[in-house]
Amino acid sequence: MFEAKVEKGVVLKKILDAVKDLVTEASWECTSNGMSLQAMDTSHVSLVTVSLNGDGFQRFRCDRNMVIGMNLVSLSKILKCASNDDKITIKAGYDDNDKMMLTFEAPNDCEVSEYEIKLMNLDSEYLGIPDTKYDVIVKMPSAKFQRICRDLSQIGDTVVISCTKSGIQFSSSGDLGNGSVRLSQSANIDKPEEAVTITMQEAITQTFALKYLIQFAKATPLCAQVTLQLSSDVPLAVQYKVIEVDADDIETDLGSICYYLAPKIDDATD
Amino acid sequence: MFEAKVEKGVVLKKILDAVKDLVTEASWECTSNGMSLQAMDTSHVSLVTVSLNGDGFQRFRCDRNMVIGMNLVSLSKILKCASNDDKITIKAGYDDNDKMMLTFEAPNDCEVSEYEIKLMNLDSEYLGIPDTKYDVIVKMPSAKFQRICRDLSQIGDTVVISCTKSGIQFSSSGDLGNGSVRLSQSANIDKPEEAVTITMQEAITQTFALKYLIQFAKATPLCAQVTLQLSSDVPLAVQYKVIEVDADDIETDLGSICYYLAPKIDDATD
Amino acid sequence: MFEAKVEKGVVLKKILDAVKDLVTEASWECTSNGMSLQAMDTSHVSLVTVSLNGDGFQRFRCDRNMVIGMNLVSLSKILKCASNDDKITIKAGYDDNDKMMLTFEAPNDCEVSEYEIKLMNLDSEYLGIPDTKYDVIVKMPSAKFQRICRDLSQIGDTVVISCTKSGIQFSSSGDLGNGSVRLSQSANIDKPEEAVTITMQEAITQTFALKYLIQFAKATPLCAQVTLQLSSDVPLAVQYKVIEVDADDIETDLGSICYYLAPKIDDATD
Repeated sequence: MFEAKVEKGVVLKKILDAVKDLVTEASWECTSNGMSLQAMDTSHVSLVTVSLNGDGFQRFRCDRNMVIGMNLVSLSKILKCASNDDKITIKAGYDDNDKMMLTFEAPNDCEVSEYEIKLMNLDSEYLGIPDTKYDVIVKMPSAKFQRICRDLSQIGDTVVISCTKSGIQFSSSGDLGNGSVRLSQSANIDKPEEAVTITMQEAITQTFALKYLIQFAKATPLCAQVTLQLSSDVPLAVQYKVIEVDADDIETDLGSICYYLAPKIDDATD
Repeated sequence: MFEAKVEKGVVLKKILDAVKDLVTEASWECTSNGMSLQAMDTSHVSLVTVSLNGDGFQRFRCDRNMVIGMNLVSLSKILKCASNDDKITIKAGYDDNDKMMLTFEAPNDCEVSEYEIKLMNLDSEYLGIPDTKYDVIVKMPSAKFQRICRDLSQIGDTVVISCTKSGIQFSSSGDLGNGSVRLSQSANIDKPEEAVTITMQEAITQTFALKYLIQFAKATPLCAQVTLQLSSDVPLAVQYKVIEVDADDIETDLGSICYYLAPKIDDATD
Repeated sequence: MFEAKVEKGVVLKKILDAVKDLVTEASWECTSNGMSLQAMDTSHVSLVTVSLNGDGFQRFRCDRNMVIGMNLVSLSKILKCASNDDKITIKAGYDDNDKMMLTFEAPNDCEVSEYEIKLMNLDSEYLGIPDTKYDVIVKMPSAKFQRICRDLSQIGDTVVISCTKSGIQFSSSGDLGNGSVRLSQSANIDKPEEAVTITMQEAITQTFALKYLIQFAKATPLCAQVTLQLSSDVPLAVQYKVIEVDADDIETDLGSICYYLAPKIDDATD
């Protein structure tokens, strides 16, 4: 049997909001260490991975390794029926092997909801993601990354990300003109979540399709900071920690969501 | 002449919001005791009644019994032109018998609006609603009833309501799986509006079309609690008190809105 | 070269919101005194003028008179990329004469955005607006003017504005009935922005198309009060001051926006 419980269900809603528009069907791999998901987006351009550590859950039990395939849009619909501060328990591999059960318990114990979602057998091949030593690692406020992607999508379809010692610059151009946003490295002791930190080996300039970055930025509510990792000839990695905040405002690191997107090949004749 | 005045117009806006999507045209019956409305919804499946007591109004006068037919969508449009804390006076049977006049007075007396709506002659037969002794009476937070109906409409088209001594359960099933919400009886001395109270003669299980219950739940802003009344072979009654809150936060019971919906016949072969 | 800087960019966003749905392309006339714009709306019925005083800007420089034509919808899109408290600098006539540059600086100096918008050569004839001595001048809360226009547009397509010593009345009629809103002259010492002030030579009654007034009212966020000026056989003038509020909440009068709309000819046979 597989069973996992979170103190505040809102974290699961945020995870689903972060993937369901990119990937409609996917399989969770469950082991005694945790649960994880890997899937290409429906257009087979970008890749998303979710990994949740068993230790981060309020309760976690997985007797045997299991693959749980499902429609993520359906799961998201069901999770929307939970209140943000409901405790949520997920159960699979019980008497009915074709279903996963979700139990929502209101904080006052007077309301209990039970939902069962039908499971699916999905063809899935687990891609090995090579452990990459990136040339550039940028940590920045996730809300700012989201806003920049949305703003520049007003101007063009692609964004050029340039990283030098002086900072990171996002730029775009299109019919109405062009635009660029430049962030300097900055620390803010009072508000560490607003810091921009750049660790780099050598300067890099790459071009990406904005529509995928905008999809990735739907993970913004999960974590105040996002990490962008870039290297030549390697996909960009956009990573968000999955932070659960419990009823006493104590944060637990439940794992992470990471999105991968290959840079566009610059075509000088274009 | 007929004249009725409320201290804070928002209560009339809420009443119209609670009926206008179900019933587009209807007749108000006005007597010296108050005004009332009874109508089938446009698909002739459910019934709604509104009864407002003359005593609850700040001023109420009805010299002779009167039937005032009108388009409720038009009335709702006009009421939206009133600010929430405007005093509203309704007048009919004055010099122009084909119109009803609405006067909105701002609290500071510097702004007065007058609207006239055209009246209609509508065929109407008043159904006698038999005084029923229901087997089960459930009082619960109206916002919770609304949320449960909306949540389960994600799962299926119908809801099974089951009431036992241990509580009330709402359940639904559909293509993506199934779901149920169970409320236990509970009192909350500090927040009586959050209590769930069940009075019952015998257990009951009935099935209803969710789309009507969702329509009924548009009365939620009128009152913090809703009363569900069920009996075998009798329509479900969903009742909301109409509470007016005046400028000094004093509540007046202006009457009630009640919706009726027949249970679906369980068809074992379906 | 032309260069103008505002302390808080939100004022420029509000100006564009006030004109971009009425006029899609227009030319700014820039002189050493300030910058101004005059344009007919796309249906050639109403006229809008914007005048901004150089003195009101934090920095203003215009070496030679210049006409800067552009698509206002594009400019509005770019301005939406600025945060409300970004400092905004506009530059034209620098090395690239076909573009205008906008620079947005975040208050913390760690984020700088630069946008360039393509300029256009537009045919424009500057209409001389005769200096009119109006019979009636009404100052009233701009939010109230906006709400009245929207409310009455539920009733009909036109509004009759009648001004007498006792106050100003807006009325409309249509299929569902008729409506009118009457404001009395009123002063409010504590809240001067809520005052209604009427200065008049003689009573006037004129009819206007509501859809233009609703467009004009998009300037509401610029200023708490609007000034309506009316005279027989002369277009209505609807004027909003352009108030900039800086980081220390100090207000600067940056200029004004004025809309002109001819009254409808009353047709007794209609």
